[in-house]
Amino acid sequence: MEVVQVLHMNKGNGDTSYAKNSTVQRKIISFGKTIIEEALLELSSNYDIDSMGISDLGCSMGPNTLSVISEIMDIVRATSGHLRRPVPEFRLFFNDLYSNDFNYLFMLLPAFYKMLKEEKGIGSQCFISGVPGSFYGRLLPSNSLHFVYSFSSLHWLSQVPVGLESYAVKHLNKGKVYISKSSPQSVVNAYSSQFQADFSQFIKSRSQELVPGGRMVLSFLGRKSIDPTTEDGCYQWELLAEALMSLVKEGLIEEEKVASFNAPYYAPCAEELKVEILKEGSFIINRLEAFEVDWDGGAVADTHTEQGKMMVGERVAKTIRAVVESMLESHFRMGQDTMDVLFIKFAEIVGNHLSKTRTKYINFVISLVRKC
Amino acid sequence: MEVVQVLHMNKGNGDTSYAKNSTVQRKIISFGKTIIEEALLELSSNYDIDSMGISDLGCSMGPNTLSVISEIMDIVRATSGHLRRPVPEFRLFFNDLYSNDFNYLFMLLPAFYKMLKEEKGIGSQCFISGVPGSFYGRLLPSNSLHFVYSFSSLHWLSQVPVGLESYAVKHLNKGKVYISKSSPQSVVNAYSSQFQADFSQFIKSRSQELVPGGRMVLSFLGRKSIDPTTEDGCYQWELLAEALMSLVKEGLIEEEKVASFNAPYYAPCAEELKVEILKEGSFIINRLEAFEVDWDGGAVADTHTEQGKMMVGERVAKTIRAVVESMLESHFRMGQDTMDVLFIKFAEIVGNHLSKTRTKYINFVISLVRKC
Repeated sequence: MEVVQVLHMNKGNGDTSYAKNSTVQRKIISFGKTIIEEALLELSSNYDIDSMGISDLGCSMGPNTLSVISEIMDIVRATSGHLRRPVPEFRLFFNDLYSNDFNYLFMLLPAFYKMLKEEKGIGSQCFISGVPGSFYGRLLPSNSLHFVYSFSSLHWLSQVPVGLESYAVKHLNKGKVYISKSSPQSVVNAYSSQFQADFSQFIKSRSQELVPGGRMVLSFLGRKSIDPTTEDGCYQWELLAEALMSLVKEGLIEEEKVASFNAPYYAPCAEELKVEILKEGSFIINRLEAFEVDWDGGAVADTHTEQGKMMVGERVAKTIRAVVESMLESHFRMGQDTMDVLFIKFAEIVGNHLSKTRTKYINFVISLVRKC
Repeated sequence: MEVVQVLHMNKGNGDTSYAKNSTVQRKIISFGKTIIEEALLELSSNYDIDSMGISDLGCSMGPNTLSVISEIMDIVRATSGHLRRPVPEFRLFFNDLYSNDFNYLFMLLPAFYKMLKEEKGIGSQCFISGVPGSFYGRLLPSNSLHFVYSFSSLHWLSQVPVGLESYAVKHLNKGKVYISKSSPQSVVNAYSSQFQADFSQFIKSRSQELVPGGRMVLSFLGRKSIDPTTEDGCYQWELLAEALMSLVKEGLIEEEKVASFNAPYYAPCAEELKVEILKEGSFIINRLEAFEVDWDGGAVADTHTEQGKMMVGERVAKTIRAVVESMLESHFRMGQDTMDVLFIKFAEIVGNHLSKTRTKYINFVISLVRKC
């Protein structure tokens, strides 16, 4: 599987689309906002910027994409007013992988430009472009950006870790699609090595693109414990594997296919992040915070009733489906019917699990400053 | 009809797609290449550029899009070698309207980047982005570009000329969809005014985006005579109107709908171009050339045989369908079946016409220099 070409959020705005199922990501964004605000205030106070380069890395194409940038522009405008400086020109770069639904995002822009003009008085001062490509490499010219942010993307690896395709490893991690309690050390090592390689490449690329003093706010899933098999770091994959194996039992997919599927995902711990950032050396860590997020984005439902369990399970299944369907489709070549069966099963398993243990995601927000 | 949101070449790569039916545009590009080469040689000889900003305005998403930029990069590389200078960094901006199929274009980029790296040795020196929006307004920051080119796009207006929707005008231009021999002066005036407004806006926007000394090569359809009803400027629309009216006769579409359809198109003459460029004042006209292009891109077929007529007619119909279908769909709300009937009829009419008169398109190529 070529992650760079396959991974994308579900397109369009239908029932299983990412645009309609991104409440968890919205929740995560709301946590990150105060930290973004702080970073932008410090940036604007310390530098007089005529033309501000801002990039959203892993922008996807939901309503979140434009609402975040809109708030960022509000903060910059307010700060400029406060400092009695003119509002800078905005150069906005929306990045995601080649297969992202940029068409959908771009069709939202006429209304967005209209709103900027009519409500915020920003007319020809804002230039938006789409930058397709992997952020685990260079995307933009040197010293072209002042502010970079990335939400709910950096837990995706650039590729399935090397080495996981061998027969021995497949056999040892049988029936699992990610790191699990039962995984051998070789699987854990393959994942953490891939993460290190990717994340250091990410940091290095951004250090070249950001101007000295530039800011970066990153938010993505991780884990609290240094143990990578800890529940908050991987249990959603444990349950997805369980759902896939139940389809194997029903003869709908082959066991071999489950054995050869490995999620290109990694939930790091804080120590792993710090090590890579310090090793690269261009950034100062201003903040590194972890917070818990409910699997369903925190909608209130009583998981002690059958109906409540079902509702929560379905909601979680939908948010995860919007994100992983493209990968499952590409690997399993399953039709829409089988995909539906899989996620009905998954919803049931998730509902049952959450009625017993309220496992949560751990989300990191890191605020970094490019050294001068 | 909102041209900015509706007009786009046929998406994907199916039988009626623009990607598969852009031989005329390819032909036009091949004429423009020597002029592009000349402009780039002069640009590179006069300026030592570290990071070259290049924009394709109205890029669409066919194979032409990437082949042109690839040749431009070859010319710049060769010139740099000749002048013993390092090859500059390339900042490439692909622009088209919001509804262009950017997804299709972006999916071609991994292979394009690979080719750049392996065949041309251009690794992390090239940054590509998509810039959605109308080129009849600002698209990019001031002084950010060194070279701008636009092929087969500037004959499209930003909107249907104001005033054409009134009952009186509709009645007077009945059964036509563009300027025709029978059109009243009010129709001609509405079209030429819209062109002047649009083209001057285009020139003004580019004068701000291009650095002093920057170059621009524009290629688009026009007419030789100052008379706007001359055949080479409008006859393809005359025949499309004829095909539409034959569908009215068959009861497949309403006459009122044909009366209210006006192509957002204008084929200017050289004088009109010069006037607007001189009026704006930022550019020197280096070249302004006109050449003829066969409606079918110049494929050899004998229109004196029935089969030859049919073949030529079909080929022309396909190239025109790939370009205008989105507009017709939006205005007439016709289904795929009716659209097929329309273009079968149109192919027949075109075949018959070309067997009698070999009408050709007139294509302008203009090379401009931004004054220092």
